[in-house]
Amino acid sequence: MPSPKLRVAIAGLGRMGARHATHFHNLTPRAELVAASSPEAHELAWAEQNLDGVRTYLNYDDMLDQECAKGLQAVVIASATAVHSEQAIKAIKRGLHVLCEKPLSTGVERSQAVVDAYRESLRSFPSQKVICGFSRRFDASYRDAYEKLQSGMIGVPSVFRSQTCDKLDPSGFFVEYAQFSGGIFVDCSIHDIDLALWFFGEDSRVKSVSAIGITAVEEGLRKYNDRDNALGLVEFYGGKIAQLFCSRMMAAGQEDSTEITGTKGKLAINTQPASNLVKIYEPSGIRREIPPHYYGRFRDAFIAEANVFTACCLDDTPPPMKLEGAVNAVRIGVALQEALITGKKIEFDEQGNRIGETAKDQVRARL
Amino acid sequence: MPSPKLRVAIAGLGRMGARHATHFHNLTPRAELVAASSPEAHELAWAEQNLDGVRTYLNYDDMLDQECAKGLQAVVIASATAVHSEQAIKAIKRGLHVLCEKPLSTGVERSQAVVDAYRESLRSFPSQKVICGFSRRFDASYRDAYEKLQSGMIGVPSVFRSQTCDKLDPSGFFVEYAQFSGGIFVDCSIHDIDLALWFFGEDSRVKSVSAIGITAVEEGLRKYNDRDNALGLVEFYGGKIAQLFCSRMMAAGQEDSTEITGTKGKLAINTQPASNLVKIYEPSGIRREIPPHYYGRFRDAFIAEANVFTACCLDDTPPPMKLEGAVNAVRIGVALQEALITGKKIEFDEQGNRIGETAKDQVRARL
Amino acid sequence: MPSPKLRVAIAGLGRMGARHATHFHNLTPRAELVAASSPEAHELAWAEQNLDGVRTYLNYDDMLDQECAKGLQAVVIASATAVHSEQAIKAIKRGLHVLCEKPLSTGVERSQAVVDAYRESLRSFPSQKVICGFSRRFDASYRDAYEKLQSGMIGVPSVFRSQTCDKLDPSGFFVEYAQFSGGIFVDCSIHDIDLALWFFGEDSRVKSVSAIGITAVEEGLRKYNDRDNALGLVEFYGGKIAQLFCSRMMAAGQEDSTEITGTKGKLAINTQPASNLVKIYEPSGIRREIPPHYYGRFRDAFIAEANVFTACCLDDTPPPMKLEGAVNAVRIGVALQEALITGKKIEFDEQGNRIGETAKDQVRARL
Amino acid sequence: MPSPKLRVAIAGLGRMGARHATHFHNLTPRAELVAASSPEAHELAWAEQNLDGVRTYLNYDDMLDQECAKGLQAVVIASATAVHSEQAIKAIKRGLHVLCEKPLSTGVERSQAVVDAYRESLRSFPSQKVICGFSRRFDASYRDAYEKLQSGMIGVPSVFRSQTCDKLDPSGFFVEYAQFSGGIFVDCSIHDIDLALWFFGEDSRVKSVSAIGITAVEEGLRKYNDRDNALGLVEFYGGKIAQLFCSRMMAAGQEDSTEITGTKGKLAINTQPASNLVKIYEPSGIRREIPPHYYGRFRDAFIAEANVFTACCLDDTPPPMKLEGAVNAVRIGVALQEALITGKKIEFDEQGNRIGETAKDQVRARL
Repeated sequence: MPSPKLRVAIAGLGRMGARHATHFHNLTPRAELVAASSPEAHELAWAEQNLDGVRTYLNYDDMLDQECAKGLQAVVIASATAVHSEQAIKAIKRGLHVLCEKPLSTGVERSQAVVDAYRESLRSFPSQKVICGFSRRFDASYRDAYEKLQSGMIGVPSVFRSQTCDKLDPSGFFVEYAQFSGGIFVDCSIHDIDLALWFFGEDSRVKSVSAIGITAVEEGLRKYNDRDNALGLVEFYGGKIAQLFCSRMMAAGQEDSTEITGTKGKLAINTQPASNLVKIYEPSGIRREIPPHYYGRFRDAFIAEANVFTACCLDDTPPPMKLEGAVNAVRIGVALQEALITGKKIEFDEQGNRIGETAKDQVRARL
Repeated sequence: MPSPKLRVAIAGLGRMGARHATHFHNLTPRAELVAASSPEAHELAWAEQNLDGVRTYLNYDDMLDQECAKGLQAVVIASATAVHSEQAIKAIKRGLHVLCEKPLSTGVERSQAVVDAYRESLRSFPSQKVICGFSRRFDASYRDAYEKLQSGMIGVPSVFRSQTCDKLDPSGFFVEYAQFSGGIFVDCSIHDIDLALWFFGEDSRVKSVSAIGITAVEEGLRKYNDRDNALGLVEFYGGKIAQLFCSRMMAAGQEDSTEITGTKGKLAINTQPASNLVKIYEPSGIRREIPPHYYGRFRDAFIAEANVFTACCLDDTPPPMKLEGAVNAVRIGVALQEALITGKKIEFDEQGNRIGETAKDQVRARL
Repeated sequence: MPSPKLRVAIAGLGRMGARHATHFHNLTPRAELVAASSPEAHELAWAEQNLDGVRTYLNYDDMLDQECAKGLQAVVIASATAVHSEQAIKAIKRGLHVLCEKPLSTGVERSQAVVDAYRESLRSFPSQKVICGFSRRFDASYRDAYEKLQSGMIGVPSVFRSQTCDKLDPSGFFVEYAQFSGGIFVDCSIHDIDLALWFFGEDSRVKSVSAIGITAVEEGLRKYNDRDNALGLVEFYGGKIAQLFCSRMMAAGQEDSTEITGTKGKLAINTQPASNLVKIYEPSGIRREIPPHYYGRFRDAFIAEANVFTACCLDDTPPPMKLEGAVNAVRIGVALQEALITGKKIEFDEQGNRIGETAKDQVRARL
Repeated sequence: MPSPKLRVAIAGLGRMGARHATHFHNLTPRAELVAASSPEAHELAWAEQNLDGVRTYLNYDDMLDQECAKGLQAVVIASATAVHSEQAIKAIKRGLHVLCEKPLSTGVERSQAVVDAYRESLRSFPSQKVICGFSRRFDASYRDAYEKLQSGMIGVPSVFRSQTCDKLDPSGFFVEYAQFSGGIFVDCSIHDIDLALWFFGEDSRVKSVSAIGITAVEEGLRKYNDRDNALGLVEFYGGKIAQLFCSRMMAAGQEDSTEITGTKGKLAINTQPASNLVKIYEPSGIRREIPPHYYGRFRDAFIAEANVFTACCLDDTPPPMKLEGAVNAVRIGVALQEALITGKKIEFDEQGNRIGETAKDQVRARL
């Protein structure tokens, strides 16, 4: 008799949603994708063509209603960032397992609300799993580095340097996108921040952030308080520091790399990017191609994420990361974005409260 | 309504058989693994634990009998090399699609018999697909190199250099294995030979082979007419040459790399091997780990092979390689092994007949 | 008849001084090292053993007096940083060409005094050359990158990232040295700052600096207001930004690397450090060694520096860099060090004056 | 009092001769280049412009006559290969130290004559040094690899793989040059052969050679019994094997690399060629440039060669290599070239005599 599979629904079938749907449908042996919702009719049409046997819904709430009656166990939230937290909370309240794409929200308070809902729900559903999809944690290279770090190979991890740099999209798409993205530090660097928290320890507490940036190729970003290249510093309590770089302007492709320096050694991930193992020898020299997009670099990590999430739901094992970390990452990302625009260093006390700001500032920053 | 899946059985559940079974069971969305045979009871026990819903058989013929009645469409041959050709021919005669692990056989005539059976069978089953599983052809890097070569990027491909070099297994397993392997050129270099035929064109005709070798770590190989390190030269008609290196003695891990030089450029595959994207900085320098075994390097290629084979059977599209090439590869591998042991250069005329040997030699070499 | 050689004296025969002396004595065909001074008798003894025909002096002023009478043309200042500016000014006033090791001084005002003396002296000696020895500008890789940048290959250079990271010296020498070094940003990052000014344009004007740091291995540095790892941000007027990393804690060796990202491409220098072209394959993987020290990485650059300086003196061609840049580099390095210790962001107006500080702060910072 | 310098003359001022002259004149502190000879007036004119104080001669014998009277101590032979052995022998007979460019001759017997002359001369001049300029032995990377090998790092060196591959010169110069070069195995692979002898031990005795080749870009080479791409196998007594690749057709630049595999590890030299430490990121990927010519790759090795030769003459220390090895290298190179053209495997007994050839063949081969 075959083992039971995790019955999963997906919310959102845009670019990333369609990929998640495909991963759960075809490449996650222990999961069964049973339903998908999207407000876009053409996305549902795509699902009907490509996701055999999956029921489709124009409305997320309808999907929850009908599918819960049919034994739905888990939801993947891959919709627009603006509705992540709301959709996640609805699923949490029904006791469903949730894998929510990053970020939980572009605001700290709304992110925290997801955590609060989960904490509340755990009283009724103690086996419920809710995680935020920081895909890089499932990448084989990052996992290998993490295990080496945990083994003590580099001593005490002390200096973290990381970048998320996109290939230049000359269509300027990212200008319009900047209205909703939360800014380059929230959209791109959130991954690096999450990695810093992972490598330094999920309980790391931020002490200060500073940032500078420019609009080298897209002046239009300024009207949305964004930049196309930015550099940040993050200081943690306990003698740990981090340096971030995010950019929309890479020529060669997606360049996401990380270095973690400890007192006895260093681990570097993807500081020599390459699409594959081919080298091209030609009159101008020796060339390697690199992945043009984030998905090209991290496809296997997304598939691993789907499988790990499925296994932890089915087997009731601890989730691979704490949901609180996702709020912490948003807090730091939002603060970096504010530092980028105001030019001010932002400081936090050991309880995570901002130092030296007025009540009004606090409110504005946390929304 | 879900699309129909290809119903597949597997023969052999040893190390590679179990991997193939897992790929078809879990990672080939368009295939359904329905049955598995193995003469080893413990392997069948493994299948019952790990392959939900797959029927198991101690006897290959029984499997064919019973499963054909249930609509079996394809067989994967992953049993001991000694029975590859026999099992393949049985499946071919029933009109089943066949994916046979390399080599078809360690002998030229028995390899040719598979091709002959397939040619005969095609008259009755014109959509039948039979391929030999040269996994490297499905590796993303080799495919990328092949497409670049086909695009004319390097001009006329002229010099091929390739190696299949295993990490030293200090248990000496490969000494006993040498009795059955056909020798290092048939067991290891068969991959490189197949790649040479692919890159130079599947109709390439061998002109001569030469080889030298040593037993640097395992003197015991000599009693089976084998060596632990060997170097070969292969000349093709039409101005193309190849150089092979095979070894059982690598310290760092599996080192399989290929270079193809054309009149206008060169493509190199895996000349900088690495397990992943991690670099380790430590007092002795900067280190990268490499895959310890063949499967670690080529797992994704095996999965792609399963998916491509499945698609070409279901969609009745041309198979990804000609079966005749697999005989050609065995012919060259067997000749290299003979050259290695006798120290003689072996020459072929343009029709593929050996030049300057007695009838007796011919018979011996082709068995 | 042989061409006349540049008659050169050197001040200082410590570790770097002895190297400079050797370069001018043996590896600079158009120069003749005629004299050397050092307050250390054992260093003079070394010179007598190793520098055939070079006259030695315990006192710098004596050397200038006696050697000027014999036709001295140029002086290399490689003494302790504390006397750089004083010795340089003395030589400048005599009309001698000067190559002064970096930094001109650890203080801005004393550095500026060297520039002022040179400007004054040029009225009398219009062919006089005075440069500060930023050795990296003479490194073949940095020169190649600079020429590529100048050719427009990467568009408008916009984001500069650079690091000077020393191998951990477990003797703790660098703690005592911190008393005199000016701090890690002045001692190490001065090179990176100079490169930023070179790549962005020598007239670049700093807008702000921020920094954070830790003592991960040497708590004792705190008593000298220093850190063993530090990260800095530098903003320039005109939409250019820079990120610096300096460390005393590298495990593998000297890791000095630079990346300059433009609107159309990126140039990276030494992001894959290696001592030479050897790779070591061993059971733990594939390893490359890297230079243990700064000199191991930049020896050829120092030799090129000696030859370029000599040629520009003999041929009366423009010096390879402006002396003003050396003051600008010290200004930025000193500000970064202050930001590191105070935790405050430091801002400058377009004329280079600090914004928002009291007169007292200004005085303190410039000394 | 300055130490005495080695008084050196040079024969030949062509491309390589001019470089050697410059190295001894400017970059070898313990040597003094006193004279140069060339049958080409324009080359002497170059010397008068560029080699201050060096006396020039149209005739080699005149130079020896006049300069020996003035205390000449050493001669560098960098003339046309055809006169290497004759000029070397003349200098040897006068008791001069000799650094002779590779090869001693393109024939075995004439190469042996140099060794015989040296052996004879040593009776009268026991401190005399005569070496053949295998420049790669002075390359820092090859030296490092050699030291690591000597330390036992890779166990017993067993499989040697090496290539000398030139960038394609579309002028076709190398076709005309093929008349004099001795063929591609003597001209290019002689370096690799010398390295094999160095790494395997200078007393290694060749057992057999085989070779194949093509004319992929220059059919015209066939009239001089040469090829533009060739592959060779060399077997040594004692369980050691080597594989060679030589080419005139590289797109990217000079690609000279070597791998030496031992029973416990492997050393690879320049399997990732690069001109310098710069990487270029552009829309087509990440690119590194490589040296276009042999001299670009090995300039520092030539300079080291000049300095090491000078030191061993002045200090009467053992020469860095045995002259006999240069004859051994020519023997193997000539045999490979013969195997390339005849298609026959050539075998040697343990005394170095060819097996199975007629007396006539022997004579032809040794000339």
